[in-house]
Amino acid sequence: MEDVLGYVESHRGNFLAELQELLRIPSISADPAYREDVLRCSQFLADHLRGIGLSVEIFQTPGHPILLAGTPVIPGAPTVLYYGHYDVQPVDPLDLWQTPPFAADIRNGNIYARGASDDKGPVFAYIKGVEAFLRTRGKLPLNFRFFLEGEEEVGSTHLDPFIAEHRELLKADVVVIADTAQFAPEVPSITYGLRGLAYLEVNLQGPSHDLHSGSFGGTVPNPAGILVDVLSRLKDKRGVIQIPGFYDKVLPLASWEKEMYDSLPFDAEEYRALTGARKLRTEEGFTPLECRWARPTLDINGLYGGYEGPGAKTIIPARAGAKVSMRLVPDQDPAEIADLFARYVLSLCPEDVSVKIKNLHGGKPILINVNSPWMKAARTAITKGFGKAPVLAREGGSIPVVATFKEILQVDSLMMGFGRPDDGAHSPNEKLCLDDFYRGILTSVYLIDELARSAAGT
Amino acid sequence: MEDVLGYVESHRGNFLAELQELLRIPSISADPAYREDVLRCSQFLADHLRGIGLSVEIFQTPGHPILLAGTPVIPGAPTVLYYGHYDVQPVDPLDLWQTPPFAADIRNGNIYARGASDDKGPVFAYIKGVEAFLRTRGKLPLNFRFFLEGEEEVGSTHLDPFIAEHRELLKADVVVIADTAQFAPEVPSITYGLRGLAYLEVNLQGPSHDLHSGSFGGTVPNPAGILVDVLSRLKDKRGVIQIPGFYDKVLPLASWEKEMYDSLPFDAEEYRALTGARKLRTEEGFTPLECRWARPTLDINGLYGGYEGPGAKTIIPARAGAKVSMRLVPDQDPAEIADLFARYVLSLCPEDVSVKIKNLHGGKPILINVNSPWMKAARTAITKGFGKAPVLAREGGSIPVVATFKEILQVDSLMMGFGRPDDGAHSPNEKLCLDDFYRGILTSVYLIDELARSAAGT
Repeated sequence: MEDVLGYVESHRGNFLAELQELLRIPSISADPAYREDVLRCSQFLADHLRGIGLSVEIFQTPGHPILLAGTPVIPGAPTVLYYGHYDVQPVDPLDLWQTPPFAADIRNGNIYARGASDDKGPVFAYIKGVEAFLRTRGKLPLNFRFFLEGEEEVGSTHLDPFIAEHRELLKADVVVIADTAQFAPEVPSITYGLRGLAYLEVNLQGPSHDLHSGSFGGTVPNPAGILVDVLSRLKDKRGVIQIPGFYDKVLPLASWEKEMYDSLPFDAEEYRALTGARKLRTEEGFTPLECRWARPTLDINGLYGGYEGPGAKTIIPARAGAKVSMRLVPDQDPAEIADLFARYVLSLCPEDVSVKIKNLHGGKPILINVNSPWMKAARTAITKGFGKAPVLAREGGSIPVVATFKEILQVDSLMMGFGRPDDGAHSPNEKLCLDDFYRGILTSVYLIDELARSAAGT
Repeated sequence: MEDVLGYVESHRGNFLAELQELLRIPSISADPAYREDVLRCSQFLADHLRGIGLSVEIFQTPGHPILLAGTPVIPGAPTVLYYGHYDVQPVDPLDLWQTPPFAADIRNGNIYARGASDDKGPVFAYIKGVEAFLRTRGKLPLNFRFFLEGEEEVGSTHLDPFIAEHRELLKADVVVIADTAQFAPEVPSITYGLRGLAYLEVNLQGPSHDLHSGSFGGTVPNPAGILVDVLSRLKDKRGVIQIPGFYDKVLPLASWEKEMYDSLPFDAEEYRALTGARKLRTEEGFTPLECRWARPTLDINGLYGGYEGPGAKTIIPARAGAKVSMRLVPDQDPAEIADLFARYVLSLCPEDVSVKIKNLHGGKPILINVNSPWMKAARTAITKGFGKAPVLAREGGSIPVVATFKEILQVDSLMMGFGRPDDGAHSPNEKLCLDDFYRGILTSVYLIDELARSAAGT
């Protein structure tokens, strides 16, 4: 590997200059005013990938283009699909930025720009690893494809249909994703679990129209009152979810997981301060990290009904509703949980209200086998690239594309990002630590090598 | 009384023509475009009252004028203060009116116009009774004053300060109010009870800002979840209010009241259809009328928190709140009940949320002594005017001015209106039955006579 690593070492300055160029393109996908810039960013990357020897296809979508870039096919070799995005979040509030968000200013060992950490920097680190291989050896030891979209920050609207339509083209043995972060600064991590989601809306109707609470109060069912009764019965006093069957398929934490989580540098007080809550509120018998990562939840996300303006309006509302979502853990199934939820809520509703339950969104929880050859290769690559073994972590949220890859392409994802939790993704003064950028490039090089080895069984 | 009644009989045509003139003035107080019309209406009434022999004072307010019109003072005689309003509701939806709202079209024995029933028609009937007395006898047997405002439909903003400022001028032995309706068509009524109100807002805060429900779910107090728990504990399963001390001062219904209510032509199914609810929901052991009129309630009037837009947004809200009001009955006190409510809610809130409780509005319940000489006079006047004895009814809502008269002037109100519940007050095609208009005039004549007699002890 000396040759490849040598190339990386001697090109650090070039890599950084190129990253600056990429970061200076304001590819804000949410704002139509930046549409041309998003397009320009996709072209910049396409040109760049062609320049280092990949063949590139650009797919137009009703939104922003999707790029697919690959090396010449090596028959029999495994295929790695690298997913990332080149679009960025808007920059408001602009006045909080110390240097303009697209200046890509370098100071204190960091590069500051919108998209530096999420996700142009990590994407570019992977690209540079591939470049190092190609420039020194002329080829990769496996089939490698970049799959880059420009709509991640606006919900990846056109991604799922694209994946479904291009199954064959995207066929891979493993996916690599750099859209996660290190667990903490200098604590590189691989995310092996994500929670799923079941998100429903309950709407109750009592009277056909808002009624005067004086003239009618005391004689009619109030849907807001009934709603709070129903919602209050979703959990008991200790917070245990009361939906029958809800916990049936919850996998208990393995002892290595508990040990791993306990070993992580997690400061509960620092975390509480981040939420602004007076106290943390966790499930009995579980640590905060366990609760965030590996325990299911039920939260009211929204509540509405009747008069919400200033002052007093004396009505009995016709309708009241709530948005309720449950974070799911392996092996809970969103469709099944949504069904259990709906049944239970219906069973709690008295017959003098009409009930509507809408299933708004669902996503399966993800658990990646941490002992697969791919995962072992990923762990080794990070260990070599960062000089320390990664921790294995989960995320409390979901990364929808991971579920899509699993469902449509039947392939697992290696979630291994290079940024830090304090990089300020989506916030002013987003940055990427230059050390992380270079470590990411090294990790990219090692990952190609390790994945090829594990495929070869060596 | 032959002379006075004869005058009424021979002037029915004139009275109706004059009422039409009054109804044709579009005195919509809510709409600034009608400001001149509201003013014109106050001038029309001032001129009219002067024309029949009253001295009139017009008081400008920051809103619409207040009129005070009286007969020459008879020392020693009792003083009756007649309260009414000359402003009307807006007319939308205009296309549902069969004839224009200010045409005052007469058909099928009714006069159709905005304000016909609420409240110009009844106000004018009282005026015509006074006219009949003055034109035939040159004076009234007591002191009579009209107190007419132009802002009743916009909350009587400037009324309370005016009353407080003109205590001496408004000093009276009894107030007459025609802003209530008959219990049912051809079932004249006197309203002797009104419910009071305590209206509060509860606002809970958990995190300092909305949190991602994936990243934080399972570790923080959710104010919406806590809110529904707290609200669900305000009543038990049977609907009994759980606030300690809430029922302590509730006066039980007298047996004559229960009998009176049971004798009323009340069709529960018709009433239910009016609400559009699937079923009525009443307090155990009480009839719907008892529940509306003489039992306290607790209703959630509004509910809010977190995400209320379309689709799914996965947040744990920072705040959630509810507007909660209680209809009060004699002898509950709004300040005391608000205090009991706040204490109870605070006792239910866990220490990991911040709680704000605002007292938004309060009003005392009213119960008029049905055996007072004034009330007896009113009952006799209606019996003679309508040819049948009035029922004694309560209202579930409040009429704030009644509480104001009680509190500031220490005087009771005789709530005796002439309209019908199906007159369409505040709705398209508002009407007044001409029979009710004439019966109202007769009642006005008899009321003057009876009040003078009862004051004289004859």
